[in-house]
Amino acid sequence: MIDYQEILSRYRPTQEEEKRLKIISDDIIGKINGVCRSRGLRAEAIIVGSYAKGTNLRDGDLDIFIAFDRDYPEEIINTEGLHIGHAVLPNGREKYAEHPYVSGEVGGVKIDVVPCYKMRFGDKKISAVDRTLLHTEYVNDHLDEKGRDEVRLLKIFTKSIGVYGAEAKTFGFSGYLCELLVIRLGSFENVIRYFSRAKGRVLIDRDERFSDPMVLIDPVDPDRNVASPVSLESLSRMKIASKMFLSAPDERFFQIERTKKNVQYHDRGTCIIIYSLPKPDLTDDVIYPQVYRFRSVLQKIMEAHEIRVISSEIDVSDRIYVLIETPACAEERIRVHIGPPVDTDNAIDFVNSWKARDRSRGPYIVADRLYVDVFTGQRSIEDIVRQEIFNYSIGKNLDRFKKSLEMIRFNVGMEALPILDKFFGADVFRT
Amino acid sequence: MIDYQEILSRYRPTQEEEKRLKIISDDIIGKINGVCRSRGLRAEAIIVGSYAKGTNLRDGDLDIFIAFDRDYPEEIINTEGLHIGHAVLPNGREKYAEHPYVSGEVGGVKIDVVPCYKMRFGDKKISAVDRTLLHTEYVNDHLDEKGRDEVRLLKIFTKSIGVYGAEAKTFGFSGYLCELLVIRLGSFENVIRYFSRAKGRVLIDRDERFSDPMVLIDPVDPDRNVASPVSLESLSRMKIASKMFLSAPDERFFQIERTKKNVQYHDRGTCIIIYSLPKPDLTDDVIYPQVYRFRSVLQKIMEAHEIRVISSEIDVSDRIYVLIETPACAEERIRVHIGPPVDTDNAIDFVNSWKARDRSRGPYIVADRLYVDVFTGQRSIEDIVRQEIFNYSIGKNLDRFKKSLEMIRFNVGMEALPILDKFFGADVFRT
Repeated sequence: MIDYQEILSRYRPTQEEEKRLKIISDDIIGKINGVCRSRGLRAEAIIVGSYAKGTNLRDGDLDIFIAFDRDYPEEIINTEGLHIGHAVLPNGREKYAEHPYVSGEVGGVKIDVVPCYKMRFGDKKISAVDRTLLHTEYVNDHLDEKGRDEVRLLKIFTKSIGVYGAEAKTFGFSGYLCELLVIRLGSFENVIRYFSRAKGRVLIDRDERFSDPMVLIDPVDPDRNVASPVSLESLSRMKIASKMFLSAPDERFFQIERTKKNVQYHDRGTCIIIYSLPKPDLTDDVIYPQVYRFRSVLQKIMEAHEIRVISSEIDVSDRIYVLIETPACAEERIRVHIGPPVDTDNAIDFVNSWKARDRSRGPYIVADRLYVDVFTGQRSIEDIVRQEIFNYSIGKNLDRFKKSLEMIRFNVGMEALPILDKFFGADVFRT
Repeated sequence: MIDYQEILSRYRPTQEEEKRLKIISDDIIGKINGVCRSRGLRAEAIIVGSYAKGTNLRDGDLDIFIAFDRDYPEEIINTEGLHIGHAVLPNGREKYAEHPYVSGEVGGVKIDVVPCYKMRFGDKKISAVDRTLLHTEYVNDHLDEKGRDEVRLLKIFTKSIGVYGAEAKTFGFSGYLCELLVIRLGSFENVIRYFSRAKGRVLIDRDERFSDPMVLIDPVDPDRNVASPVSLESLSRMKIASKMFLSAPDERFFQIERTKKNVQYHDRGTCIIIYSLPKPDLTDDVIYPQVYRFRSVLQKIMEAHEIRVISSEIDVSDRIYVLIETPACAEERIRVHIGPPVDTDNAIDFVNSWKARDRSRGPYIVADRLYVDVFTGQRSIEDIVRQEIFNYSIGKNLDRFKKSLEMIRFNVGMEALPILDKFFGADVFRT
């Protein structure tokens, strides 16, 4: 049997931490409201996020919004928001979501101070930031003390199997989605049972407007699928982890800290190349989509050269890394070049022009088409990528780093890299 | 301009040859009828084939049928047919089509003496041999002297581009199909124009019962598509050759004898292996289907080991040869093994059982499925084929030769082989 209370006692904030969070948030709220008064701004600080909902885990962050009256123009919100943020977080740095905001630290607690418009239920235009205010209200109305701990268990579970977080890095379950799942299904174990039995798409709400792998409609915004970030992979992980937990309950499903696996690098008889770019100083949600794009560009280059991609991996740590595994480290010496069908008007031109050119074989016919085997001037994969990467966009922040692209050919004796640990340690759950 | 008369004068039988054929066939017919009389058989000799239709090319064969009254049982036809055949062709050898028959040579002319039932137009059961009698009659009724020469031109053309002959070796245009094309379209050049413009399937008759690439209904048997043996490749060759001939008329389209091409063997950076079996003493129509099957079995073995087949070739000369080209001469060291979807009941078993076994990577999730990368115990392609060939049938006459399978790895310096000439010399037209 799993001792849920013991698990909660490890990950729930201590009484001391709760006290500290209360003192810090009261202090920041007071300061923000003071600045607003002194600058004559019709705005007020509101505490939001998991702390405000009582579903926070130990060592969590504080999210504080500055809600402005709706008649302020956007520019005022942006400039005043940053001004107030810097005023209350002296060591803060500017970041950008829907509005620019300030992120800093007080007494060991990470704090985001984010400007937004005041919002009431039923108001027309709902921005992501506005919606957060309504979420806090909704969750507090629907969860009791026991429910909050059920949410905490679900967060610990999803974190430990690597599917917690809606952001582009994970495409998993947001904190709010965890809260709604517990509200809808009643308890942590009900949620797990539900996913262990789920087949195909997980439609907690049936709504044909959404084709995502999982659908759960936001109770405060009926046009929004709260589960839309959940990727098919994250959903699959959640399903299999739920099955495995029920068939053999184990503490490791509540183990947020990853014990470093003893990953063995070994010769797979393939060509593994790691492509690495400098990492721009931007948030994960800006970087990750471009890293996925970088990977898909590399896959496209391979495809264009008829080089089969066996597997791939990505990693963002000190730099951006993409790993591409192929059967060999060079393209093939010849390529079967597909010509037109024999029925077409340019069929003869194809035959005549290729008969006059250097080629390995043909033109010849298979079924109703012409083909010719051409010499490729065989190049290493690195040479191909070095040339062709400039024909593709890998995102506005990464494009300028193309010239700094580094390519590392894997060999068994090389020093450890996080992406290689991820690759060789690939597991049902994210490593 | 092409001098068709000059071409015909090269390939049409000489007057001297015609005279010799007449003497030989009259002699054989007389002898057959003599034997029939002396044995009291109600049967008579009939000359059929292209000689009987006046569409024969130089150095052709003679086909003589012994037509028996329809009330003879099959056994009598078979035994008496062979007896008569041996009587008139002392050096004859027995062969087998619908009935056994004797094939021999007289005065340098190859002669087949084939027993069959007498046949009249409208009779119910029509065998392939019976039908031949009707074809001879039909063609003689519909072709004049000029038409016969037009057929000869079409035969020379299709022979020179490698699509003459309905048998399994070629899957091309039979002599009878050439005759019908000229009867239907009027002349050699009309036929060429027709094919040069044809798009997609060539439906000279529209008949939904047939899905072959080309359809032309037999005027003596409305249930039969005379063009059914024509493969998509042969049809494609005919189309492109017709286009090329019309755009640049050239004598080489009437050059039956192949000038040996100067084929350059060269390194394609691939693995070319030639699989060779002894050739049983059987007709091409029995051997070729099994050779195609042999090739497709080799392709299936490659597919089962995820080894990509780049190209292939077959050749039947002193032995049976199949060439298979692959990127490398050994399988890969690892294989991505596809597991069940995460939703299935045995998903957990897959995970647990693979976690206990030797593997390169995983089990891991892609989309909604489980995968694991397994070690293959890398073997050479020869080793794989040597083991796996016994799990497949390659036809009743070839199966017993599996133990004699020879595998030759191509290298640039090796001695010439017809299959390599075919492979490296692959052309729009058959080499």
